[in-house]
Amino acid sequence: MSSTVLYMSMSLDGFVTGPNDGPTNGLGDGGEQLHEWIFQGTGDHPRDAVGGLGGVNRQVVDEFMTTGAVIAGRGTFEPAEGWGGDHHDGVPVFIFSRNPAPAWAAAWPTVRYTNDLDAAVREAKHAAGDKNVLVHGAGTIVRHALAAGLLDEIQIHLVPILLNDGRRLFEGGIDQRRLERIQVLEGEDGVTHIRYRVRR
Amino acid sequence: MSSTVLYMSMSLDGFVTGPNDGPTNGLGDGGEQLHEWIFQGTGDHPRDAVGGLGGVNRQVVDEFMTTGAVIAGRGTFEPAEGWGGDHHDGVPVFIFSRNPAPAWAAAWPTVRYTNDLDAAVREAKHAAGDKNVLVHGAGTIVRHALAAGLLDEIQIHLVPILLNDGRRLFEGGIDQRRLERIQVLEGEDGVTHIRYRVRR
Repeated sequence: MSSTVLYMSMSLDGFVTGPNDGPTNGLGDGGEQLHEWIFQGTGDHPRDAVGGLGGVNRQVVDEFMTTGAVIAGRGTFEPAEGWGGDHHDGVPVFIFSRNPAPAWAAAWPTVRYTNDLDAAVREAKHAAGDKNVLVHGAGTIVRHALAAGLLDEIQIHLVPILLNDGRRLFEGGIDQRRLERIQVLEGEDGVTHIRYRVRR
Repeated sequence: MSSTVLYMSMSLDGFVTGPNDGPTNGLGDGGEQLHEWIFQGTGDHPRDAVGGLGGVNRQVVDEFMTTGAVIAGRGTFEPAEGWGGDHHDGVPVFIFSRNPAPAWAAAWPTVRYTNDLDAAVREAKHAAGDKNVLVHGAGTIVRHALAAGLLDEIQIHLVPILLNDGRRLFEGGIDQRRLERIQVLEGEDGVTHIRYRVRR
């Protein structure tokens, strides 16, 4: 059974970017520190990172790089320059957006823009087979996915920094709910990987 | 050597109360879930909780109940009705506030209101001797304590709930900084106790 799993690096104060994030400053001021645990000087794409990584952090990256499909918010995908059109291994990438794909992204055969999250999850799970579906995003996509019952698990990479401002992973507009903690891993560099199952 | 340690229960989305918190709704709507890991049906004061607690959560409560002094924000102290004037064992309690103590709190010999956080930390550490100083608060006191270099450690009790709205532990207005993770404990009921040292 395929599960949708939100994988996000978050500062202790709840941010997934630093302040002043925008088209030319995708992670915001200081936000690159959120992903240092993945990128140990080996490149700027997750697929290049694994070689330089240590034990627990490598295990976590290895896991999310074996997902069978990707669903991402436009606000996460576009500042990351679409990961060059291939998150990993050419798996299908669904982008949740009200707008059509920009030309640079529309040219990639693996990428599809859609404003129908329900259909995207269904297609992504079908494409993933028995692998999981990696979800990347914050704010809007998290709110929609939770409200529609489309998110099965949340994997937080809790990074030991305070960013003060930026984009929050949880921006409000959701129902209160309990989560079920299913795993805690003490990663290197002070990153704590905590996994939750979303209760229905 | 005495350290100041911020002990706070926080939801995964960063809140220390639920929405609509106020004088008659101290923890906000749903906020009582933040402290269920402490209060296992044994009373409404931390000193009564220990008997009903299990392994890791009991260890954490035991630890913070052996601190030698307490510093709290007014916004945390007053909704908690001042813990009846005695947080535990009659240790001195310093309340960071611009306002004088209300009559009900001024009557307690162990409680002192002050707007001089630096002096409060100095006196609290002196009173605590070789024990630690427990800090309870959010927003303003956290901002002041971080800015003035008065906070040595942060102990987050990360509760597996989403509260959507309420008071945030970190409300902004702080400098970006890295923390040093020094302990992770998997508590019962899905609470993850993560301890950080604040770098200077």
